[in-house]
Amino acid sequence: MFETAELGQKLDKERYSARVPELRQELVRKQFELRQAKFPVIVVISGDDRPACNELLNVLRSWTDPRYVEVNAFPVPTDEEVERPVFWRYWRCLPARGWIGMFLRGWTMQPIVMRLIGSLDDQEFEHWLDHARRFERSLTADGALLLKFWLHLPEAEFRKRVKASKKAPNKVWRTGKHDKRIYNNYDLARELMERAIRKTSTGPNPWQLVESTDSRYRNLTVAEKILEAVTRRLAQRDLPREEPPPPTIASPAPTEAPVTVLDTVDQSRSLTREQYSTELDQWKSKLFRQAHKAAERDVSTVLVFEGWDAAGKGGIIRRLTQAMDATLYRVVPIGAPTEDELAHHYLWRFWRQLPRAGHVAIFDRSWYGRVLVERVEGFATEAEWSRAYPEINDFEEQLVEHGIVVLKFWLQIDADEQLRRFKEREVTPFKQFKITPDDWRNRDRWNDYELAANDMIARTSTEYARWNLIAANDKRSARVEVIKTVCRALTQATKRASDDE
Amino acid sequence: MFETAELGQKLDKERYSARVPELRQELVRKQFELRQAKFPVIVVISGDDRPACNELLNVLRSWTDPRYVEVNAFPVPTDEEVERPVFWRYWRCLPARGWIGMFLRGWTMQPIVMRLIGSLDDQEFEHWLDHARRFERSLTADGALLLKFWLHLPEAEFRKRVKASKKAPNKVWRTGKHDKRIYNNYDLARELMERAIRKTSTGPNPWQLVESTDSRYRNLTVAEKILEAVTRRLAQRDLPREEPPPPTIASPAPTEAPVTVLDTVDQSRSLTREQYSTELDQWKSKLFRQAHKAAERDVSTVLVFEGWDAAGKGGIIRRLTQAMDATLYRVVPIGAPTEDELAHHYLWRFWRQLPRAGHVAIFDRSWYGRVLVERVEGFATEAEWSRAYPEINDFEEQLVEHGIVVLKFWLQIDADEQLRRFKEREVTPFKQFKITPDDWRNRDRWNDYELAANDMIARTSTEYARWNLIAANDKRSARVEVIKTVCRALTQATKRASDDE
Repeated sequence: MFETAELGQKLDKERYSARVPELRQELVRKQFELRQAKFPVIVVISGDDRPACNELLNVLRSWTDPRYVEVNAFPVPTDEEVERPVFWRYWRCLPARGWIGMFLRGWTMQPIVMRLIGSLDDQEFEHWLDHARRFERSLTADGALLLKFWLHLPEAEFRKRVKASKKAPNKVWRTGKHDKRIYNNYDLARELMERAIRKTSTGPNPWQLVESTDSRYRNLTVAEKILEAVTRRLAQRDLPREEPPPPTIASPAPTEAPVTVLDTVDQSRSLTREQYSTELDQWKSKLFRQAHKAAERDVSTVLVFEGWDAAGKGGIIRRLTQAMDATLYRVVPIGAPTEDELAHHYLWRFWRQLPRAGHVAIFDRSWYGRVLVERVEGFATEAEWSRAYPEINDFEEQLVEHGIVVLKFWLQIDADEQLRRFKEREVTPFKQFKITPDDWRNRDRWNDYELAANDMIARTSTEYARWNLIAANDKRSARVEVIKTVCRALTQATKRASDDE
Repeated sequence: MFETAELGQKLDKERYSARVPELRQELVRKQFELRQAKFPVIVVISGDDRPACNELLNVLRSWTDPRYVEVNAFPVPTDEEVERPVFWRYWRCLPARGWIGMFLRGWTMQPIVMRLIGSLDDQEFEHWLDHARRFERSLTADGALLLKFWLHLPEAEFRKRVKASKKAPNKVWRTGKHDKRIYNNYDLARELMERAIRKTSTGPNPWQLVESTDSRYRNLTVAEKILEAVTRRLAQRDLPREEPPPPTIASPAPTEAPVTVLDTVDQSRSLTREQYSTELDQWKSKLFRQAHKAAERDVSTVLVFEGWDAAGKGGIIRRLTQAMDATLYRVVPIGAPTEDELAHHYLWRFWRQLPRAGHVAIFDRSWYGRVLVERVEGFATEAEWSRAYPEINDFEEQLVEHGIVVLKFWLQIDADEQLRRFKEREVTPFKQFKITPDDWRNRDRWNDYELAANDMIARTSTEYARWNLIAANDKRSARVEVIKTVCRALTQATKRASDDE
């Protein structure tokens, strides 16, 4: 694979000097156009030639308007990063639409180094690459222009440099710890790098290999490719839309009154006031203890609440939080996205809300809005909401792999019960603010929402993060059921965490 | 001082149970109104009774709609926090307008504990309280409703508890490390606490002492006070405007063509192309080395660029960044604030952009917009921009105290030079995007801007963060001058950091 980047490519000074001033002007002009565009540019500069990566980054930055370029390097993870899934550090610095974000060494170099020193096994290595591929697909599907450059230094060239470096250390090349590791195991490293490049080179997101021996050739090649790609993309009137992946599970055909998985929820269970009071107290005090134990073991939790309007999300969340130390949880109400959120991938706002170690994040509505309200109301295109299913599965898989407890609740009530509650809200003074014209409008589209919820459950109830369908016609039993489920999951996870120690 | 909270206040169960349900409803209803309001509510729960603080926080949270309450506790600072000034951790979790933010133990308990164990001396302790007071004043001046509660446990009560705790540990009260420290030095601790309370109790922001012995009394008292304050505030049609502090330095009387400090800038220096090339290269390579050394010593830098349109900020920033490793700096262009930024104190967006240890943040326009464009164009009221001077001074003081190098540059050109550059921009194809009708409009108000700049320099050129007035009619000498200044400051700071080690 690297053969194409070992041809001894060179560029003479005259041609370089003749082209650079013009190229810089064009880059800055395109950057200005980009400011008005609706997509971000993500440039990954990686490769086996670390010093060349750094130098190239400097050159690219000096050739562009530094005000609209963000450079992200990833040294040793901070403790705030360590407490979240690996890709959190990349998600949190994604550029907004109209900006250029440069990522030094990207998200593919770390697994190579970790595999090399044995802190990942082969399966974990492959798995990481898998996540990287899905991460990239998700970015480009959202409209990002992703450009990945791999700077390759031919082996012979490398050996020359090491020799020179030994004679005049600091002058030529300061070898880093990672470089040494790579070059002490050159054959294995090369194999791993080739594998990583191959596995993360997809149709829309290929790696571009660039020979790094000659700095003029390397600088100009990469800059020209960026200019060309940005120019081409700006010329497209509409964002390219990726074809939606074929649904893995067929949805039931829409009928007047569809039969969905929601109809299977058994609403017969109910609790008397006395039973409720006893059971609730009992589970609340269990939860209080469990949440503390989980916090001590650094077990983090993500709770997701979805369901019909008036299904009782607020009431359940309130009982849950009553049973936890106020410093341990954060409720994240999800409403219409802000400007800043709209300027990023729709999952960005949720990544940013992931809990610290030992904490609980409670999402009152969530990323599932994409495949529920946004789908039904047409705020997201079909291509957008259909690719959301695999993206969400991947997101949740990363949480679970990081050891986060992920629990998703769908609160199910039937249409009659909803009507009863709407009417009650209208006549109860302190509940009036809870009912708006929107609620009535949504109710008119009950069948559409039912189908959307059915699809959502079909496609995102995974073995690692199942949907819990909660019968909520009876508020009391629903509340107890949810707290019980959370409590049991925390107990299990805490036990697992203790066993691991 | 604590005498008023040692009266043995109690509340019987009947009165408590009778009031609580009603109170909760009122709280939730007010919260709903608050969502539409233009101010945040900041509740500090602190005091010598740590377990009571935690319990009260839980109670308050369970009595409110948890979706619009953020609770912030501050355990051991993370490394991302340690790398910034102390108040960064508080700034970054300030609630947006319409929200309630609760702060467990607030920002006054830490200095008490630190003073107690001797890691602050008396002067540093006072200084911290000073910052706290100014922080709070800045929040309330911006419209925040700040409520501070100090839960006090009388000494006799405390001794009883400790005894009980010894007999049945874990059951009654788990004593924390800090509690022990406080109670082992009860008299000193009490004195420090009283001093802290007194020094941070100002007219608009008093501490409210609450006896914590009886949980019913304590819960109800605090909740009622919150309800009352929020209700009162919501009833006010307009936000209360604090009177602007009297200007410490008189501004020159506005005249047709004012004589300002800007007129004192000597524009006579200029460099030939050859001199420029030699000097620039020389200082750029010095800067490259210095920036690396500074990074190694964890010396952080904040550079601020202000000046007339077309004064050459972009060109200078570009030369500066060419001389630094791309991973070491971030350019922060300041434009119109986003929705999210508008929902917070105007300094919030700048606090969030403070650099990590060893990094450089370059602000292309800055917090000084408040006293320049916002003042001149009337985007900020006189009360707002006049209180910005001391707020900014305080902000910068905190940066400098944390060891951050703060350099502020005003790029000065005269009106004729600006006109020449505007015209040049209009006829140079790749510069046309740089000139907009706004630039011409601003130019019409030259005198107003000149006065605003003069006031700004008069009031914010402090001994710890002076303004550097750069003669920029000659672009070449301006560029060299700035790089030289940055380079020298980094050299000094790095030397200081090495000496300290």
